[in-house]
Amino acid sequence: MVSAHSADFVWRAGGAIALYASRGWRVKIVCLSYGERGESAKLWRAPGMTLEKVKEARHREAQAAADLLGGELECFDLGDYPMRVPDEALYRLADVYRELQPEFVLTHSLEDPYNFDHPLTAHVAQEARVIAQAMGHKPGGSVLGAPGVFLFEPHQTEQCNWKPQVLLDITPVWEKKRQAFELMAAQEYLWDYYTRVALNRGVQAARNSNKKHIKYAEAYQRVFPHVTEELS
Amino acid sequence: MVSAHSADFVWRAGGAIALYASRGWRVKIVCLSYGERGESAKLWRAPGMTLEKVKEARHREAQAAADLLGGELECFDLGDYPMRVPDEALYRLADVYRELQPEFVLTHSLEDPYNFDHPLTAHVAQEARVIAQAMGHKPGGSVLGAPGVFLFEPHQTEQCNWKPQVLLDITPVWEKKRQAFELMAAQEYLWDYYTRVALNRGVQAARNSNKKHIKYAEAYQRVFPHVTEELS
Amino acid sequence: MVSAHSADFVWRAGGAIALYASRGWRVKIVCLSYGERGESAKLWRAPGMTLEKVKEARHREAQAAADLLGGELECFDLGDYPMRVPDEALYRLADVYRELQPEFVLTHSLEDPYNFDHPLTAHVAQEARVIAQAMGHKPGGSVLGAPGVFLFEPHQTEQCNWKPQVLLDITPVWEKKRQAFELMAAQEYLWDYYTRVALNRGVQAARNSNKKHIKYAEAYQRVFPHVTEELS
Amino acid sequence: MVSAHSADFVWRAGGAIALYASRGWRVKIVCLSYGERGESAKLWRAPGMTLEKVKEARHREAQAAADLLGGELECFDLGDYPMRVPDEALYRLADVYRELQPEFVLTHSLEDPYNFDHPLTAHVAQEARVIAQAMGHKPGGSVLGAPGVFLFEPHQTEQCNWKPQVLLDITPVWEKKRQAFELMAAQEYLWDYYTRVALNRGVQAARNSNKKHIKYAEAYQRVFPHVTEELS
Amino acid sequence: MVSAHSADFVWRAGGAIALYASRGWRVKIVCLSYGERGESAKLWRAPGMTLEKVKEARHREAQAAADLLGGELECFDLGDYPMRVPDEALYRLADVYRELQPEFVLTHSLEDPYNFDHPLTAHVAQEARVIAQAMGHKPGGSVLGAPGVFLFEPHQTEQCNWKPQVLLDITPVWEKKRQAFELMAAQEYLWDYYTRVALNRGVQAARNSNKKHIKYAEAYQRVFPHVTEELS
Amino acid sequence: MVSAHSADFVWRAGGAIALYASRGWRVKIVCLSYGERGESAKLWRAPGMTLEKVKEARHREAQAAADLLGGELECFDLGDYPMRVPDEALYRLADVYRELQPEFVLTHSLEDPYNFDHPLTAHVAQEARVIAQAMGHKPGGSVLGAPGVFLFEPHQTEQCNWKPQVLLDITPVWEKKRQAFELMAAQEYLWDYYTRVALNRGVQAARNSNKKHIKYAEAYQRVFPHVTEELS
Repeated sequence: MVSAHSADFVWRAGGAIALYASRGWRVKIVCLSYGERGESAKLWRAPGMTLEKVKEARHREAQAAADLLGGELECFDLGDYPMRVPDEALYRLADVYRELQPEFVLTHSLEDPYNFDHPLTAHVAQEARVIAQAMGHKPGGSVLGAPGVFLFEPHQTEQCNWKPQVLLDITPVWEKKRQAFELMAAQEYLWDYYTRVALNRGVQAARNSNKKHIKYAEAYQRVFPHVTEELS
Repeated sequence: MVSAHSADFVWRAGGAIALYASRGWRVKIVCLSYGERGESAKLWRAPGMTLEKVKEARHREAQAAADLLGGELECFDLGDYPMRVPDEALYRLADVYRELQPEFVLTHSLEDPYNFDHPLTAHVAQEARVIAQAMGHKPGGSVLGAPGVFLFEPHQTEQCNWKPQVLLDITPVWEKKRQAFELMAAQEYLWDYYTRVALNRGVQAARNSNKKHIKYAEAYQRVFPHVTEELS
Repeated sequence: MVSAHSADFVWRAGGAIALYASRGWRVKIVCLSYGERGESAKLWRAPGMTLEKVKEARHREAQAAADLLGGELECFDLGDYPMRVPDEALYRLADVYRELQPEFVLTHSLEDPYNFDHPLTAHVAQEARVIAQAMGHKPGGSVLGAPGVFLFEPHQTEQCNWKPQVLLDITPVWEKKRQAFELMAAQEYLWDYYTRVALNRGVQAARNSNKKHIKYAEAYQRVFPHVTEELS
Repeated sequence: MVSAHSADFVWRAGGAIALYASRGWRVKIVCLSYGERGESAKLWRAPGMTLEKVKEARHREAQAAADLLGGELECFDLGDYPMRVPDEALYRLADVYRELQPEFVLTHSLEDPYNFDHPLTAHVAQEARVIAQAMGHKPGGSVLGAPGVFLFEPHQTEQCNWKPQVLLDITPVWEKKRQAFELMAAQEYLWDYYTRVALNRGVQAARNSNKKHIKYAEAYQRVFPHVTEELS
Repeated sequence: MVSAHSADFVWRAGGAIALYASRGWRVKIVCLSYGERGESAKLWRAPGMTLEKVKEARHREAQAAADLLGGELECFDLGDYPMRVPDEALYRLADVYRELQPEFVLTHSLEDPYNFDHPLTAHVAQEARVIAQAMGHKPGGSVLGAPGVFLFEPHQTEQCNWKPQVLLDITPVWEKKRQAFELMAAQEYLWDYYTRVALNRGVQAARNSNKKHIKYAEAYQRVFPHVTEELS
Repeated sequence: MVSAHSADFVWRAGGAIALYASRGWRVKIVCLSYGERGESAKLWRAPGMTLEKVKEARHREAQAAADLLGGELECFDLGDYPMRVPDEALYRLADVYRELQPEFVLTHSLEDPYNFDHPLTAHVAQEARVIAQAMGHKPGGSVLGAPGVFLFEPHQTEQCNWKPQVLLDITPVWEKKRQAFELMAAQEYLWDYYTRVALNRGVQAARNSNKKHIKYAEAYQRVFPHVTEELS
C-alpha cells in the first residue's frame, strides 16, 4: 500500500487493510509524506504551530489508525505540496517490495487535478515495482514477481478519469474503518463524506451481484489484466 | 454465450466453453445468425450453392463444434450482413436467460468497424439481460439476477476500442479448442491466426501473474465492476 | 426536461425543477414511459397486480412529485424495458419544444450499460430538439432556438462515461427534493442513496468554489459549449 | 462519397472531388437526402415555398456543384431531420459500391450532437460497404474489396470527437472548390466559414510537413489502418 | 494568466485580457519564458543576433501588447525549448497567486505534441495553484481560494485532445486583440491564422446560443466543474 | 529511430530498418540504454556477471543486429530501470537529428504501465525533435524540418492505449528480421512472440487492403497528421 499523505490510506483503503489484516495477512502501509503542508489545515489553525509539530501530530494519527486497522506503517517523510521523490526513495520502496513480496499493491489514481502528489505517488509506486522486478537491480537479491496494482478511489472520481472495476465488500470490517476515520482529527469534515462513499459503493456492489448482504464497499481500478481460472 | 455468427463462439470463447463444460457446468450457446452471407466465403465458391445449403453447412459445423466443446447450441437464424433483430428475438433471448439463470454472459465487443453485426449482438445480449431482470416483464416468472457480462476478443482489438481486463487460462482445454477450430472448414484461414492469439495471450497471462505454467489464454473485457471479497 | 421513466426526474433533476419553479419559471417534465415493467419492482410484489394498475400508481406518484416540485407533467406512455420510440413521439416532443421554447433541456446520460432506455431517451431528447430547429419541419411554425442540453447524473457515473461539468447549488430547495423522494414509494431504497449523492456533490461544489454555504448540489454534464460573457 | 445532405459534399470534400476528377478518376457522389427540412432555411423564407420546391432547388444546386467539381451525383431522397434509412436504401448503396469498386469512400464523422443525420449516414456508408463485401449478398456478383474509409471534417470537430489524421493538399483545385461554394445559395453564411477552415488546415499541412507551398487543405480521419510500403 | 512564451497570451487569451481590463479588473500575465529559442525564428534571421537581443525584442513586444490589452506583465525568464522549472519558480508563482487572489486562471492545454513547454506550463500553473492553497505553505499568509482554471486554445486543437467547453464573446474588444497581434512582429504569419480562429469560434458561439450578434470568440476548456446557481 | 533499450529496435522496428536499408537509405538507431538491469535476465543468471559485462554483451548483440539489418547504431548508455535523461542527452539527440535530417522518426508508445523507460524515451525523442527545430538552439546550424513521428508496437498494445494506424508490409525483409531476433540471445522467449505478432499484423494488412501477398507486417501509430496528395 503506497499512499501520498499519511491519512489517505484510511479514507481510500482502510477497509482492504482491515479485511486482510483480519485474515492474518501482513499489510504494509508506506506513506511518502505526512501531508503536513497541504492536508493539515485544522492543525495549522492552532497557535504556535510549526512544521515539525504538524508532522508529529500527523504521524501519531496515522500510527494510531494503522494500529487499529492492523497494518504496519512506514513513513518516508518526503514533504508535500509539492512532493519531490529522489531516486533513493524509489530504491527504498523497491527494497520494501522485495522484502515483502506483496500479493498486490494499492495506490492512488493516475490523474488528479486537485492534488498533484497523488498521481506522482501512483507513478512512484509503479516505477519502484518495475525496478524491483529487474534482475540487474541489486543483483543477487530475490526479484519481485508481478503483483497486481489496484488504484483506490480519489476524491472526485470523474475528474480523475478513474473507473471502479472492482468493488470490495468491506461490510465485515466497516466499524473498524469508521473508527479509524475518527482518529483523523485533522480532517473531520471527511468522516461523513467517506461514510457516504462507502454506503453508495455498497449499494452498487449489491446491485452488480447477487450479494444482497453487502452494505459497505471500497472501489478500485485495475492497472493490469486479471489473470484467472474463473469468470465471475 | 451470445454470438452473432455461428462460428464466432469457437474462435473467441471456445476455451471458456470447454473449460466450464469440463467442470460440469451447463453452457448455452446462442447464435443469432449463421453468418451465411458474410462469413461463408469458402462455401459460396462451391457450384450450385444456395442460401439454405450454406445455412445447413454452417449449422452442422457449429453443432459439431458445440458438441466437441460441451455446449448446447441454439440458433435464432436472424440473417446477417445486415443482421436485424425484431423484438420477439429479444424476448426469446430474455426467456433463455430466465430459464438458464446464467452465472455470466459472454458476447461481442461494443464497437467493430469491420462487422456491424457484432456490436448489434452485444447490444442485444445486454438489452435482453436487462429485460429479463425487469419484474414487470412476463410478471410471475422468476427474474434474472445480475450476471456479469464479458466481451470476448474481436479480430482487431485496437480498432474496436476493446481492452483485455481478464485473461482466462485455457491451457487445460487448448487441444479441444484447436480441434473445434478444425471443424470450421469454411474459415480455415483463421485456424492459425487464433492459435497465435491464444499463444500470445498466454505469454501475457504468464507475465501478468506468477503462473508461469499458462501457455494459452483467452482475453475478455468486463462491462460491470467485479464484486468480490478478494483483491487478486 | 425529458426523462425516460416517471421517477427519474425526481432523483436526478428534482432540485433544478424546484429551483427554477421557485423563481417563477414554467418547468415542463416529459416522461417517455412509466417504468412500469422495469422500475416498479415493489409494486409488482403486491397480489393481483396488472400492468395498468402499475402504470396508474406510477402516474399518481409522478404527478404528486411534479406538483410538489412545481413542474408540469406530460407522460408519453411509450413502454419500457425496452422502450421503443416511433417517429410520432419524436414529432410530439418537437412540438413540445416549439410550444415551450425552453431556455435549456435536461435529460439522461449518453451511455448506461444498466439501462438502455436512458441513452435512448437522451438520443430522442436531442434528435427532437434538432427537428424542432429545422425550418422545413412543419413550416410556418416558430422554430426552436439553441437551448443548451444538460445531462443529469446517472446511477453509476463512471460506468456511463459521464462527467460532472456543472454543479448546481440546490441547498435552498433541498427539503422539497427530499419530500419528493418520499412520494416515490415504489423505489424507497433510493431515498438515502440520492440524499448521499446530493450531500457529496454539495461538498464538491463548496470545494470547487468559494461558496462554503453550499450543502446540497446536483451535477450535470454539458453537451454543447457554454457561450458566455463571463469566465467563472 | 456518401453524404447526408445535398450540400455537405461541397464544404467537406469538394477539394478531394475536384482533385481526383482533375486526375481523370470517376468520382461518384451519393446524397442520401436533400436536406430540405433542416438545411434550407434561406429557401423556406421565400413566400409560397413547398417541400417539393425546396428539394428541386437543392437538387439544382447540388447538380451544378457536382458538374463543376467533376463528380457524378446520385440522390436517394430519403428525407432529413430525421433521416430514416430503409434496408432497400442500404442495398442500393451496396450495389453502387459493387458497380463502382471505389478505391476509397468518404463520409461523415461518427458522432455529431448538432446533426443526427450525419453519423447515421456514416453508419450507412460503412454498413453498406460491409454488405457489398459479403460473398453471400446477391451471390454471383463481384464482391467489393476493402476500400479505405475517410471521415471528412464536421462543423465543430472537437464536439464530434473527430481528429484530422490526413491533411490533403487541395491548393491546385481551390478555386473550383470556392466556386462550388458560391453555387450553394441556400447556405451563403458558410462560404467564408469553410474558406477559413481550408486556409487554416493549409497552414497546418505546411507546418506538419516540409511542403511550404500548400495553402489550402482538407482534413480527414481514417477508420482503418493505412496499409503501405512507405512511412511518410 | 500563465503562459509559456511571451506571445502566447496574445493569440490565445488576448480577448479575455482586454475584456476584463475594460471592465476595470486587474489582469496579471505571467510569461515563464520569452520563447527566445523556439518561437522567434524571424528575429534570428537578422544578422548579428544573440540570445540576449532576442529576449529584449520579445520582452518589448510582449510589454507593448500587455499595455495595449490592459494587463500587467511579469516574465520569469526560465528559457525555452526546453523550458525547465525549478521549485523556486513554482513558489514564486504561488506567491503571485496569493498576492493577487485571482478569480480565475488561464493557461495552456494539458497536451501538445508540437510544443512540450505548453503542457509543462499548464502543469506548473496548476501545481502552483495547489501549493498556494496549502495552509502549511508559508504559514501565516492568506491562502488561495479555489479559482477556476481555463485552458486556452492550442494551435491544433484535436491533436492536443483539447475541447472547447466555453465560448467567450470577445466582439467588443476584437479590434484591440487584432492590434495586439500586429505588435508581434516576430510571428506575423500567425496574425491571419488567429483572426480566422476568432471568426470561426464566433460563428460557433452564435450557433450555440441565440446571441446572433457575436462575431468573434475565444474558446476555453474547463479543468474543474462550474459551480453555479444557473443552468445556461 | 530512438529506442529505450538496446533490443527494442529489433522486435518493434526491425522490419522498417531492413526495408529502408535495402532501399539504400541511411538508417540511424539510437539506443538510450542497454537495458542492462531490466531486460537482461538471462545474462544475469550466468555466474560472476557484472553490470559492465552485461552491457558489453548487450552492446555486441545490438551491434550484430544493427549490422544485419543495415542500420547504424549509437548507444547513449543512460542506464535503465529507471532511465534518467539529463539535458545533455537531449541536446545530443537534437544534434543527431540536425546532422541526419531524417525523413521520419520511430520511437516507443506514449504510455506503458509495464515499462516506464519506454514512454520516457518517446517523450525524449519528441522533445529533442522540437529542440532541433528551434532556430535559437545553437543558432547558425541548419534546423530540423518536420519529420513524422511513428510509434512502434508495444508488448501489450491495449494496456498502452496504442492504436495501429499504419501497417507496413515487411514481407520482403522478414527473413532478415527473424535472423536479427535470433541474435538477441538474452531474450529468446520473445522470438516466437514477435513472429506471431508479425504474422497476425500481416493478416490484418492483407485484410485492410487488396494486397493479398502481404504475409508479415509491422504496425505503427502516427503522432501527427499525414500530409499528402493521395487518399489511400
